[in-house]
Amino acid sequence: MNVDHIGIATQRIDDSLAFWRDALGLEVTATEDVTEQGVRVAMLPLGDTRVELLEPLSEDSPVGKFLQKRGPGVHHIAVRVADICATLARLKENGTRLIDETPRRGAGGCLVAFVHPTSANGVLLELVQHD
Amino acid sequence: MNVDHIGIATQRIDDSLAFWRDALGLEVTATEDVTEQGVRVAMLPLGDTRVELLEPLSEDSPVGKFLQKRGPGVHHIAVRVADICATLARLKENGTRLIDETPRRGAGGCLVAFVHPTSANGVLLELVQHD
Repeated sequence: MNVDHIGIATQRIDDSLAFWRDALGLEVTATEDVTEQGVRVAMLPLGDTRVELLEPLSEDSPVGKFLQKRGPGVHHIAVRVADICATLARLKENGTRLIDETPRRGAGGCLVAFVHPTSANGVLLELVQHD
Repeated sequence: MNVDHIGIATQRIDDSLAFWRDALGLEVTATEDVTEQGVRVAMLPLGDTRVELLEPLSEDSPVGKFLQKRGPGVHHIAVRVADICATLARLKENGTRLIDETPRRGAGGCLVAFVHPTSANGVLLELVQHD
């Protein structure tokens, strides 16, 4: 397991880059619109993981609602696992509340599933299995 | 640069371990009371980084206040840098608001400094320089 990425909710990616890129020195390697999640994602590698800046494409998207409720900040933590189905089975066995009981396709063809924050200390946790 | 750790505020570490250790499968390698910050820290390595579960030792500690205001969840993200003074100088030059203008001693003899969330997209960002 490893941290795949840290998703950070932001009103406008362009404004956020003043800190993450210009001040801290990270580089934007890709930007992608994930229309089914209603979010624009800028990817900034950071060692073996990356920061993902998340800008809502609409106010009623998950990130749009998060911003209205909590304001900008860490939206989710994504953990890379070798076998997402085995991980989900173990979590379920331990009584973990899952948002996705079975994995779905994420960006770049990955398999992803979310754990509910009530089971993970208030953290929205994403599991990611790369091909 | 790399992600050094992800600090997660929790009411009780023992309760949180039901998820992070027992369900997700991480291991607690150390627990430490950082009395000057009023916090108990459990360290759970995760790939090249680690999860730090943070339990307040008193209600008026920084993590205690965070829990009252926001509830459990991601408290801070720590980024490992090679030269913390150079990083702080660059951030300052770019107009970043710093909590610590000069580094101080953190756990294990590291040098640490915090960036104010208003400058980092709502994220409380810790810079860490290991010896």
